[in-house]
Amino acid sequence: MQKQITIGIIGAGRIGKLHAENITYHVPGVKIKTVSDIYADSIKDWAVNLGIEKVSSDYRDILNDPGTDAVFICSSTDTHSRFIIEAAKSKKHVFCEKPVDLDVSMIKKVLKEVDKAGVKFQVGFNRRFDHNFKKVHDIVREGKIGVPHIIKITSRDPEPPPLDYVKVSGGIFLDMSIHDFDMARYLSGCEVTEVFAQGAVLVDPAIGDSGDVDTAIITLKFENGTLGVIDNSRKAVYGYDQRVEVFGSKGCVTVSNDTPSTAVLSNEEAVVAEKPKYFFLERYKDSYIEEVISFFDALRYDKETPVTGIDGLKPVIIGLAAKKSLLERRPVKTSEILSE
Amino acid sequence: MQKQITIGIIGAGRIGKLHAENITYHVPGVKIKTVSDIYADSIKDWAVNLGIEKVSSDYRDILNDPGTDAVFICSSTDTHSRFIIEAAKSKKHVFCEKPVDLDVSMIKKVLKEVDKAGVKFQVGFNRRFDHNFKKVHDIVREGKIGVPHIIKITSRDPEPPPLDYVKVSGGIFLDMSIHDFDMARYLSGCEVTEVFAQGAVLVDPAIGDSGDVDTAIITLKFENGTLGVIDNSRKAVYGYDQRVEVFGSKGCVTVSNDTPSTAVLSNEEAVVAEKPKYFFLERYKDSYIEEVISFFDALRYDKETPVTGIDGLKPVIIGLAAKKSLLERRPVKTSEILSE
Amino acid sequence: MQKQITIGIIGAGRIGKLHAENITYHVPGVKIKTVSDIYADSIKDWAVNLGIEKVSSDYRDILNDPGTDAVFICSSTDTHSRFIIEAAKSKKHVFCEKPVDLDVSMIKKVLKEVDKAGVKFQVGFNRRFDHNFKKVHDIVREGKIGVPHIIKITSRDPEPPPLDYVKVSGGIFLDMSIHDFDMARYLSGCEVTEVFAQGAVLVDPAIGDSGDVDTAIITLKFENGTLGVIDNSRKAVYGYDQRVEVFGSKGCVTVSNDTPSTAVLSNEEAVVAEKPKYFFLERYKDSYIEEVISFFDALRYDKETPVTGIDGLKPVIIGLAAKKSLLERRPVKTSEILSE
Amino acid sequence: MQKQITIGIIGAGRIGKLHAENITYHVPGVKIKTVSDIYADSIKDWAVNLGIEKVSSDYRDILNDPGTDAVFICSSTDTHSRFIIEAAKSKKHVFCEKPVDLDVSMIKKVLKEVDKAGVKFQVGFNRRFDHNFKKVHDIVREGKIGVPHIIKITSRDPEPPPLDYVKVSGGIFLDMSIHDFDMARYLSGCEVTEVFAQGAVLVDPAIGDSGDVDTAIITLKFENGTLGVIDNSRKAVYGYDQRVEVFGSKGCVTVSNDTPSTAVLSNEEAVVAEKPKYFFLERYKDSYIEEVISFFDALRYDKETPVTGIDGLKPVIIGLAAKKSLLERRPVKTSEILSE
Repeated sequence: MQKQITIGIIGAGRIGKLHAENITYHVPGVKIKTVSDIYADSIKDWAVNLGIEKVSSDYRDILNDPGTDAVFICSSTDTHSRFIIEAAKSKKHVFCEKPVDLDVSMIKKVLKEVDKAGVKFQVGFNRRFDHNFKKVHDIVREGKIGVPHIIKITSRDPEPPPLDYVKVSGGIFLDMSIHDFDMARYLSGCEVTEVFAQGAVLVDPAIGDSGDVDTAIITLKFENGTLGVIDNSRKAVYGYDQRVEVFGSKGCVTVSNDTPSTAVLSNEEAVVAEKPKYFFLERYKDSYIEEVISFFDALRYDKETPVTGIDGLKPVIIGLAAKKSLLERRPVKTSEILSE
Repeated sequence: MQKQITIGIIGAGRIGKLHAENITYHVPGVKIKTVSDIYADSIKDWAVNLGIEKVSSDYRDILNDPGTDAVFICSSTDTHSRFIIEAAKSKKHVFCEKPVDLDVSMIKKVLKEVDKAGVKFQVGFNRRFDHNFKKVHDIVREGKIGVPHIIKITSRDPEPPPLDYVKVSGGIFLDMSIHDFDMARYLSGCEVTEVFAQGAVLVDPAIGDSGDVDTAIITLKFENGTLGVIDNSRKAVYGYDQRVEVFGSKGCVTVSNDTPSTAVLSNEEAVVAEKPKYFFLERYKDSYIEEVISFFDALRYDKETPVTGIDGLKPVIIGLAAKKSLLERRPVKTSEILSE
Repeated sequence: MQKQITIGIIGAGRIGKLHAENITYHVPGVKIKTVSDIYADSIKDWAVNLGIEKVSSDYRDILNDPGTDAVFICSSTDTHSRFIIEAAKSKKHVFCEKPVDLDVSMIKKVLKEVDKAGVKFQVGFNRRFDHNFKKVHDIVREGKIGVPHIIKITSRDPEPPPLDYVKVSGGIFLDMSIHDFDMARYLSGCEVTEVFAQGAVLVDPAIGDSGDVDTAIITLKFENGTLGVIDNSRKAVYGYDQRVEVFGSKGCVTVSNDTPSTAVLSNEEAVVAEKPKYFFLERYKDSYIEEVISFFDALRYDKETPVTGIDGLKPVIIGLAAKKSLLERRPVKTSEILSE
Repeated sequence: MQKQITIGIIGAGRIGKLHAENITYHVPGVKIKTVSDIYADSIKDWAVNLGIEKVSSDYRDILNDPGTDAVFICSSTDTHSRFIIEAAKSKKHVFCEKPVDLDVSMIKKVLKEVDKAGVKFQVGFNRRFDHNFKKVHDIVREGKIGVPHIIKITSRDPEPPPLDYVKVSGGIFLDMSIHDFDMARYLSGCEVTEVFAQGAVLVDPAIGDSGDVDTAIITLKFENGTLGVIDNSRKAVYGYDQRVEVFGSKGCVTVSNDTPSTAVLSNEEAVVAEKPKYFFLERYKDSYIEEVISFFDALRYDKETPVTGIDGLKPVIIGLAAKKSLLERRPVKTSEILSE
């Protein structure tokens, strides 16, 4: 019979709670022993209901517990690196939300520590586990579209985040497009070498005032010559728009949005279908479950995690290149970021 | 805080196990205390893993337990009536798999006992809880298609059941079409008054030899004048085909099949999409969860169950009318079955 | 170089004019010499503009002209038989609009005369030449769905015809469903042996008062065992609804409606597409061209016409069986109609 | 009654013949008096069959004919400017195939001469008349998607042109993408101010050897701040891929490809639909008819042509900016091209 895995969760905001619930209801053989949060009081009832043993305001109660095997880091981005390093030193396996950090040299340091400690490390790029994108990935890997020529990613949110969040998020490229940069790498199986970003403030002038853009088109060049393009918007009134297309020498594969139902109503005015699922919690519901199942499988069977440290580093580099490209109005090589 | 509900499950075949797992993982506040099965030994490991307290070979261990509030009857059809009546007498609420019974007078007797005991009673017509069909139902109820004129139901299985099962199933109309008869009532909100069934043996001659058909078209007439048609096949090589259409004075609503992903591959030969989800366990996964949640909500808040005893009776009457129609090669009124 | 074919057209109502225009603009090598119409004066300008030589109020000016090779009979149904017989006797090839006649023995007499004269004869079942239905036909013929088990035809008009027309049309089965009976034969490649019709008056009570129904579901049994079902309505508010589905041992082929464009608008309310093309002139535009091209090809290369006299007779028999079925509330064999 | 318009056609290659046939069969009231071609002999039979009066090897037979009202210039690109100027001086209205010229100052000179002569002038950007793109245009104009934020154009050919043609075509941006630049202006109703082109040779190395690319992603910035992106490939194995998407503050409109039929085959392997219509002659068949009808309407009712001289100039400027961008690996402003 399977050995039970015991974990702790640092940070019980929306995503921390989501992981806790998914693990409780969908992953047999894993016990959440401790959850730490700076607002520990506010999560007590929730934790009791889930059968979580302990709630603490100090994350060290997790890292110092010898009975805990792994830790989920779901706190704010600026705390990730510190917690990962401490967790690695405590020999805990780590699942960390994206982005690992906004600073490339810090991420490198983190990865070195993780490596040294020999613990498992997975980054929360959940979209790789989405049924649609995984299918595209598999079709590409099976050679069904031949050699990829063009990769297109559409990624639009239904609403901009609060302005306070925009200001500390690192900007659209590091907060929002970073998922798309990961997707580009996942689908192509290849690294990005050059980035050109075109951006505009079309949704909300306040976003512009805070130094960011809300609409962007990002052209990518991959090391094998494939071209890519991402289009982002902070606000699609019809909901969460998440589509990809990979075009190659032998064909083209696309995925469209998921909808709450397949119902189509034909009436005197038009033929009407449902809007896409509203936002990431609905759209990527199952992918969040799959990613944690994969993490625990890697632990249990001592396999490589499906989203590694390098997978955490590379999208940040692409994001920084996009940021520089927008600022300097020229294509920027990813090697420029690495040599900075 | 919610009062805990304690239940027992009679019969741990495929569907009994499914309910047990759904309740364990998806319905907070419900405890499965006992599972009974004639092959009790074979389910022990499974039960332990789910945290079920007790496994018994005697269903009376459930019905006689004063700490048990409700019972799920998932045993073979020929035992349903007896178990329901005994459960009602023991003042247990009852969730019973479809069909309640193949005999109309027996169902009537069962409903009388349930009524007398004042317990809740729900029949397992899970498709009413499917996201697609529920949406069609809601669109019809909201008047968006006006007055219904034509209801069309396509329902085709990927594979015929084993021949042994076909022989005891009561025939295609009582085993398979019965879900569609329930759907017809659910979507129309109206009773069926006349049935004409046309059948053929086109899939497997052995099905014909056992006295059944494997392909059928059933025309329905509803009491408000609406017309309906169901087409059934025991074998659709492309998978589980489950679609409905309601056409009315102000429009038409349709639902198509669900697929594992929205991926579409265009290549030199064609434009290729995924087949429908394979069979009922995949297709109706969420509906099985929703139906038990609804049952427990009815218990907890003392509401009417969403699929009542009458909803268990009526489709059997329609099924028997279809059977008679096929045999006598003429349209049969449902009132003929009632007066038999 | 191709020999020029010279024709006359009897009857210049909507469909006669349509054929004249299609032949003029789309069929090289055919000359429309004469058009006859009882309201000859009203069509003179139209005829001049099309370059038609002669307009007459007497159809015999066409039949008696030795320079005319073929005649299109586009007058009212009650004149068809007489004109076909006279044309055959004058050794003119005949293209006749559907239905040939409402009387089976008269059609048989007509076909005998046509046969005796040795002229070509084609009936105007234009839907066989529609790109969608032709594709379904081809897929079925190529064996791609295996042996057909179920044929489903949806055929709904956007508006009922004027009540005066309803009264003389022969009823919904001979006026409207007759196209679907032809389609059933075309797609199955097989004859219908039994018909059960269920009808209702749901669109307009005045249609009921005139002795007809406006909504119908017709179940068909084919001689090879295949089952079929047609659903008809005189009024689909969203436009002309023309779909078919053939389900068989190796798969299922469906066609959906054509739309004016593929545009899809996603907005705050819904995802909105265009309604089907409005009515038969838009939807079947190209099929009308293809059918006359096929007719002239049959003349030019001395081939059998693609829609023969038998193809004109059989749907009328099915229509009469449907009418009898509705009246007598029982399934009716097509052989009953033939033996009357 | 309408005055007859008499025209001549210079150049009877594929596109010249197409216009001649469309005018003959679909545009009443227009007479093609003369066709000139350097290989006059080879087109005589074709011309006779179409009822064209005169075939000449000298285009001046058209321009010098006082009875000719307008001329279609369908010869090779390098002859366009000269023929337009001469035609304008001869007071003939001009329909000219795209591109007008590859040289901006020459186009300006041409437009000045056309203006001076006061003749009508239309450029052959036929895609504006396509049912799908016209619908997108109308939806955008009606404000249904609000203010446009992102315009996406996918345009991929089924096969690269012959290498000899690639060499003289002016390159992918002036030969192929030029249609997309026109589409970008048509859909946005706004001018492009900046272009960034990323290109690659992924289809055929010989195209690279001839100094061109065969795969491209072009980012556009419009003067109102809208962003745009075009992706091009010389070879999509599944056929002609022509889609657009306009995303804005109130919604998003997309069009997908047209297909020969709506048939969908579900079988044991997959759900299979038809490929897009093969190439521009099938896909844009009706748009070629609509564009000439519009031209003759402009002549007849003295209206502005729907695709003016400026519409001929601007896409060439964008194409030259794209070329420069690819060469210099930087975004290029369209004003740079104008000031050269």
